[in-house]
Amino acid sequence: IILSFVSFSRLNEAILPHAIICYFNALLFFTDLLPALNGDAKTMNFLQEVVDIMLAYIVESFDRSTKVIDFHYPNELLQRNNWELSDEPETLDDILISCRATLKYAIKTAHPRYFNQLSTGLDMVGLAADWLTSTANTNMFTYEVAPVFVLLEYVTLKKMREIIGWQDGRGDGIFSPGGAISNMYAMLLARYKMFPEVKEKGMSSVPRLVAFTSEHSHFSIKKGAAALGIGTESVICIKADERGKMIPSDLERRIIEAKQKGYVPFFVSATAGTTVYGAFDPLMAIADICKKHDIWMANSMTWNPHKMMAVPLQCSALLVREEGLMQSCNQMQACYLFQQDKQYDLSYDTGDKALQCGRHVDIFKLWLMWRAKGTIGFEAQIDKCLELSEYLYNKIKDREGYEMVFDGKPQHTNVCFWYLPPGVRYLEDKVEKMKRLHKVAPVIKARMMEYGTTMVSYQPQGDKVNFFRMVISNPAATFEDIDFLIEEIERLGQDL
Amino acid sequence: IILSFVSFSRLNEAILPHAIICYFNALLFFTDLLPALNGDAKTMNFLQEVVDIMLAYIVESFDRSTKVIDFHYPNELLQRNNWELSDEPETLDDILISCRATLKYAIKTAHPRYFNQLSTGLDMVGLAADWLTSTANTNMFTYEVAPVFVLLEYVTLKKMREIIGWQDGRGDGIFSPGGAISNMYAMLLARYKMFPEVKEKGMSSVPRLVAFTSEHSHFSIKKGAAALGIGTESVICIKADERGKMIPSDLERRIIEAKQKGYVPFFVSATAGTTVYGAFDPLMAIADICKKHDIWMANSMTWNPHKMMAVPLQCSALLVREEGLMQSCNQMQACYLFQQDKQYDLSYDTGDKALQCGRHVDIFKLWLMWRAKGTIGFEAQIDKCLELSEYLYNKIKDREGYEMVFDGKPQHTNVCFWYLPPGVRYLEDKVEKMKRLHKVAPVIKARMMEYGTTMVSYQPQGDKVNFFRMVISNPAATFEDIDFLIEEIERLGQDL
Repeated sequence: IILSFVSFSRLNEAILPHAIICYFNALLFFTDLLPALNGDAKTMNFLQEVVDIMLAYIVESFDRSTKVIDFHYPNELLQRNNWELSDEPETLDDILISCRATLKYAIKTAHPRYFNQLSTGLDMVGLAADWLTSTANTNMFTYEVAPVFVLLEYVTLKKMREIIGWQDGRGDGIFSPGGAISNMYAMLLARYKMFPEVKEKGMSSVPRLVAFTSEHSHFSIKKGAAALGIGTESVICIKADERGKMIPSDLERRIIEAKQKGYVPFFVSATAGTTVYGAFDPLMAIADICKKHDIWMANSMTWNPHKMMAVPLQCSALLVREEGLMQSCNQMQACYLFQQDKQYDLSYDTGDKALQCGRHVDIFKLWLMWRAKGTIGFEAQIDKCLELSEYLYNKIKDREGYEMVFDGKPQHTNVCFWYLPPGVRYLEDKVEKMKRLHKVAPVIKARMMEYGTTMVSYQPQGDKVNFFRMVISNPAATFEDIDFLIEEIERLGQDL
Repeated sequence: IILSFVSFSRLNEAILPHAIICYFNALLFFTDLLPALNGDAKTMNFLQEVVDIMLAYIVESFDRSTKVIDFHYPNELLQRNNWELSDEPETLDDILISCRATLKYAIKTAHPRYFNQLSTGLDMVGLAADWLTSTANTNMFTYEVAPVFVLLEYVTLKKMREIIGWQDGRGDGIFSPGGAISNMYAMLLARYKMFPEVKEKGMSSVPRLVAFTSEHSHFSIKKGAAALGIGTESVICIKADERGKMIPSDLERRIIEAKQKGYVPFFVSATAGTTVYGAFDPLMAIADICKKHDIWMANSMTWNPHKMMAVPLQCSALLVREEGLMQSCNQMQACYLFQQDKQYDLSYDTGDKALQCGRHVDIFKLWLMWRAKGTIGFEAQIDKCLELSEYLYNKIKDREGYEMVFDGKPQHTNVCFWYLPPGVRYLEDKVEKMKRLHKVAPVIKARMMEYGTTMVSYQPQGDKVNFFRMVISNPAATFEDIDFLIEEIERLGQDL
């Protein structure tokens, strides 16, 4: 019974000495693998070798005694291995060596002490699902090439709409290659809803449109506006309060102001968990203002399971309240793909809703993780991250040498703080102090990477000099890892 | 020595009866896996089970005696398994059952007789690389979180630029989530290059822009124009000759006409291998016209390794001639991501060139396949597909009951043809004949899917009724598979 838990890779090594396997792969090339005649066994052998490399990497990644990163500067990393592409093929043994080298110098995003920008953590069921997705190697444009995945997208989007509270889970949606693209879709739909002629006639057919977002919002709103031909100057940044929440009265003031100038407000982006502070904009108050002024806001929602839900990257959904809008906004009815005389219900050919043609299967990892955890499992996972954030906040809020970027308990898992080394802590000259403090976080971060012990983000914000931003989304992290981070910041920063 | 080729999964089964493994997974939940304390062995066991399922699927996929697809209509497929998401977690055994069910109803895109729209084929090295990419679970926005992958993107993009002939491989580029997005990037860059103020001020600040593309081009050009606020009416479709190649004289005529109307031609999209006919637009002649009229054309190139190079989806590159243009067009300088005081050379933080924020690692599978095959390996693989196309063309061009959609040898691997069943073949009434012929391909295709024997695309084009379009890009296909396809078309269609 104990046997079933023995690592198979070790078992294999015991039976098949490594040297024998290497010897064979050294003589083999990709042409020996499937679809080669009698390629089955050689293929299984090669793939199992790759799996063994990955399994060893996974175990190592979760081991706190290993480094988060074996850091090298770009030019140095270029020298440490032969990364060049050539005309001639390499042996399968060389390919395995490349796999090992790639993982050796990769960031261990699964490491319990990896707190850098998302993604952090590596979910074992999500990983298994992503492997299976690669093995199925298909794309989402039609039911005919992805029957199961199209259905799973259908089931999952409905579930997500139910959770956000749309009646009977009705509405529409799509998985897109990331939150920035989902946000761009939302803006595209909002514009089309108000001025459907824009699809054929372009922006020259519509009045000057303006969008509104918090000054703390994600940069994708401006990127989207630039791409869609709206222009970044037509994105009006609304003031946020000291906790980073959009101020509804400022929003309404700016909407009225824009209307007075003859502009057409068409889109308000509000955020539940801003990038830096983790602030929740007052969604209800904003929705009321948008309803009053007939502006798109609660009409769609970007939900990124690759963030707090820790689904492997990429996994982002745009949920849309109005059915059929995505289709009419984006469809081009390519007759070589969306044939109208197929034998099955064509509403399952979702491809013409998308800006993409081929679309990667991002649904399976979310779906399989959901099955493995249940909704309550995701809830527990996020609650644990919130608990760790509160622990961190309580630990440092009165600790000598620390200052919080904003007062009060964090709303989400973001904890923003300065560490003031003794040499900076007591400086009287405020300007000099800020100047020195601004340099502290970048140096500590660089040292963390060189030692490879942990990683955490930092940035300035507005008139605030560089501060650390802990975003706890790594399911492997524990209270001890938070303690370690604080000790490490002090160890690496005390001389600054 | 022979031992090293034994399938490990079978070895495991011999040592560890399947029942024992199942018994354990039936008691286990995701909470037993890493990062759980002492979760190593259980995690290895679970992942190895998933790997065994995948390895069995791979071997089966390449086996011609298995079905390409076990087809079910959407409502039926919804009933055949429990696909619902619930609040409660499932056991790991249930998760393995879901993995098996998902693959059971998936299309075997690796099957040697799968000829449907791309992707076809499953490259073993590409697959291994995709598994490893999932295991590394990171994203491309900064060097700090993806040091190796950022370098590999750098190395590979340079190699690609060398191949297309840009001096010393200089220029810029990015991997994007598919060809449609790459094309949209190109249009975005072309517009910005001509009118940089469009980024801030939007389309209202620029004159009416027009783009040109072949009437046979991919629908992404119009989708992109709609999204970018240019409008589909500003995409002028240029006539193609009977082989599907853009006619340069028509292009120049339409450019001059547009200018006379006061419009500003800014972008010409030409295609090397059109979607349906596989036609190569006369690139040199088009480039000369664009140079003369100062229009973006040879300034960028979309290159999709997930097509003829058979890299697993998604893998698409946009190559750009002018260095720095992507950065200035798309950057928003988010200070929480692209900190300017990092310790390393910031030119390796490529994220601000992109429309995306988080960006999936698409490079490793291409890079690893390139190492395994060498440039000559890709060449041989594509040559083999071309050879099969020519074989198919020669086989059917004079065969009774077949008619080619256009005369002459195919330029690429696309072979477009009608099959006329005996009942249609001799009809005298031309209108009736076309009406009947239009229905033939959809019925044969539906039957292929129901039998699960093979799959091939069909579509109408302009005034041409539904025809089959073979695009041979599956490295597993052989002459015998082409023979099989023709026999199968005749077997399934002779009564129509």
